[in-house]
Amino acid sequence: MQWIFSPKLLERITDFLHANRKRRIKRLIDGMHSADLADVINSLDSKDRFLFFDMISDEVAADIISELHNDSRRIILNQIKSEQLAKIIIKMDTDDAVDILEELDKQQYYLVLNNIQEKNKEKAEELQKLLQYEKKTAGGIMDTEAIAVSSEFTPQQVKEYIKNLDVDISDFHYLYVVNEDNVLLGKVSLSKMFIADDQSKVKTLMEDGVISVNVDTDQEEVAELFRKYDLMTIPVVDDENHLLGRITFDDVIDVIDEEASEDAYKMVGLETEDKVFSTPIESMKKRIFWLSINLGTAILAASVVSLFEGTINKYVLLAVFMPIVAGMGGNAGTQTLTVIIRGIALHELTFHNTKRAIFKEIAVGGLNGIVLGSISALVAYLWKGNPILGVILGMAMICNMIIAGLFGALVPITLRAIKIDPALASGVFVTTLTDISGFASFLGLATIFMKFLTN
Amino acid sequence: MQWIFSPKLLERITDFLHANRKRRIKRLIDGMHSADLADVINSLDSKDRFLFFDMISDEVAADIISELHNDSRRIILNQIKSEQLAKIIIKMDTDDAVDILEELDKQQYYLVLNNIQEKNKEKAEELQKLLQYEKKTAGGIMDTEAIAVSSEFTPQQVKEYIKNLDVDISDFHYLYVVNEDNVLLGKVSLSKMFIADDQSKVKTLMEDGVISVNVDTDQEEVAELFRKYDLMTIPVVDDENHLLGRITFDDVIDVIDEEASEDAYKMVGLETEDKVFSTPIESMKKRIFWLSINLGTAILAASVVSLFEGTINKYVLLAVFMPIVAGMGGNAGTQTLTVIIRGIALHELTFHNTKRAIFKEIAVGGLNGIVLGSISALVAYLWKGNPILGVILGMAMICNMIIAGLFGALVPITLRAIKIDPALASGVFVTTLTDISGFASFLGLATIFMKFLTN
Repeated sequence: MQWIFSPKLLERITDFLHANRKRRIKRLIDGMHSADLADVINSLDSKDRFLFFDMISDEVAADIISELHNDSRRIILNQIKSEQLAKIIIKMDTDDAVDILEELDKQQYYLVLNNIQEKNKEKAEELQKLLQYEKKTAGGIMDTEAIAVSSEFTPQQVKEYIKNLDVDISDFHYLYVVNEDNVLLGKVSLSKMFIADDQSKVKTLMEDGVISVNVDTDQEEVAELFRKYDLMTIPVVDDENHLLGRITFDDVIDVIDEEASEDAYKMVGLETEDKVFSTPIESMKKRIFWLSINLGTAILAASVVSLFEGTINKYVLLAVFMPIVAGMGGNAGTQTLTVIIRGIALHELTFHNTKRAIFKEIAVGGLNGIVLGSISALVAYLWKGNPILGVILGMAMICNMIIAGLFGALVPITLRAIKIDPALASGVFVTTLTDISGFASFLGLATIFMKFLTN
Repeated sequence: MQWIFSPKLLERITDFLHANRKRRIKRLIDGMHSADLADVINSLDSKDRFLFFDMISDEVAADIISELHNDSRRIILNQIKSEQLAKIIIKMDTDDAVDILEELDKQQYYLVLNNIQEKNKEKAEELQKLLQYEKKTAGGIMDTEAIAVSSEFTPQQVKEYIKNLDVDISDFHYLYVVNEDNVLLGKVSLSKMFIADDQSKVKTLMEDGVISVNVDTDQEEVAELFRKYDLMTIPVVDDENHLLGRITFDDVIDVIDEEASEDAYKMVGLETEDKVFSTPIESMKKRIFWLSINLGTAILAASVVSLFEGTINKYVLLAVFMPIVAGMGGNAGTQTLTVIIRGIALHELTFHNTKRAIFKEIAVGGLNGIVLGSISALVAYLWKGNPILGVILGMAMICNMIIAGLFGALVPITLRAIKIDPALASGVFVTTLTDISGFASFLGLATIFMKFLTN
């Protein structure tokens, strides 16, 4: 029973909004899921977004604000009063609340934090603790809403304890079991508690040896634990195994999405923050660094061509065919690179089996080189009528495809071995190498066989 | 308390395996998580993998087999007897069981299915039903382990009902509520059942308006629902809203990983099945199609260069600089492409805001073109001492960067509009376009200004 988003509804909301008929809008959006409401806001004209947001109750606003697109959220955070924002943040899950606080500028940040402190001291302290953790670590993505119980509790005692907590229990599926010093001992699912006998105790129901994660662990490692052990939540602990909070799978989905974007982005020298709707100046600033590096490497490749000016001068057709050799090597190298980087990301490639992967890619390059080199040779001969040109083109292509396989595998593997992200601008390095080897092999062979070429 | 994987342990296992000391191994791996055991198998020598797998109990094997890498699983499926495999499959979750059956060759498939039928008719029928659904749809990834209850049940009745089911309740967190015709009415979390009063009924506790998904829905749409609504499981229904099964978040993590790989892969003309350890021949076959298309487009670009043979003949230095213009355009175009494709995948880019995205990318291209074009102009002048060459290079660079922004955005957006996957080989199209426009603009300008160039 999904709620269907229609342009008509959007139109009606806009009309009511401009006519200031708040009650009609409220009736229209009553019962809508917060994610759908966020969609509505994202689709409104920029100037209407805050107008609409301002009409929603604090409870609903607390659910919506993290779901908005960056540009919508920026508009709302720019216009909202600190006091109202504080009220909303108090009602949010702590992990989302921290994300919002981190988006504020310094002045607003302190105003809002002071407001939270006045209204709810405990919450403010909790948030300040969370704010200390690095953004992309377990501590940076955890919330503090974990429910901890004693191993001596009976189901009845757990039931009473939970009923007195001010939480929506539907969002909880596990209890964490701790000792009197808050050291994590195990976990137990609430479904198991449900069917347990009245006489049983938490300690007889719980699984010990629960998988937990240290608060400083990198978020990608956290995602890997979820993937590997099919987890739904993971408890977060400090160095002495004290329970600090939990990470839920929805936060991990965000991490996995981020990770995938990052790999795709880094390969072509992009930064993660470079989104579809970053401003042109922002995007330009973020891209120019790697494009400049690229320009440097392109000039390097051009200088290789420059070495062979005399050869090209003798037989100008070489200038027509040299981009084919370089380009095909670049494409084959990027294919290899993509396979290897995904293999590393999904932990299929380990140090253990690296050599096999490299040899495999060299073999693929050689096989593709033989087929495509032969086709190219034939095309060059039929097009320009010179068989020697064809042979040189084909041979250069085979060389370059093998080199593409070699470096397409070697570059990310080497980057990882020296602890640099294997995806980081590896595309730039690989295409530079295939450009250089493409130009050098083709023009080099042409120089050696010039005598036959111009006969 | 993660189990730490050590090379030493692996060595000991191998030693015991070769000495056929099964009991020692069993003691060594006792209590290990199935995902860690899968890691052990993946790390053993190929010939030892089945030996080890064969020693594990069917229950544990059922948990492990889906977690293995493709090459390990292939080794095991090739060596296992049909009867043993049938026993293992009966103990598996239905969604994983179907995946294994689909990996078998025809003969083995029927042998195993017959064996299952003999041992457990009900299970065989369930699996055969699941096997009918398309692989990459909700039906293809769902399991049939959903627990359905009547809305009239009291907590006590639900408790009795669940206790009589033969399931590990720790893996269940929601009950689905259905009427007597198995039509889905709502869901209720088991944690809510746990704290409910004895007098309450399921119908007073359940959320109606539960988000469900039709059995034919594409798996990427399923993943998008999980992302958007922060779901943990989703019930799967047919056209008449009958409950058929459920999809759990761990299957969705697999879909998200697959999706991310697919996008990265398709951009460079790779197929998803092309893994790090596919055989060279398999990989070569999968890659050669798009590389051939690429060769065609490279020849197209070369034919543009060929139009200007006369110009290059007059001033051979043009051959040195033309790859710079084309290459920089290709890189800038690929950056734009990557941003747009991720924007589409994460639903940030809608039809609504497409025009803005295109204009933004053109602006970024223009800005980068001005900066990098100026640098290139300066380099060309300082290197080769010809200011006119520098000016032509700079102007061509600006043109080509703008075109890169335009086509980097337009190609995936157009592909999507005509219902083709926006990532599909879009890298090939964009770099072809930037190659052609790079060569044409640079050599075209050189032809026009030849008089000044050679003065």
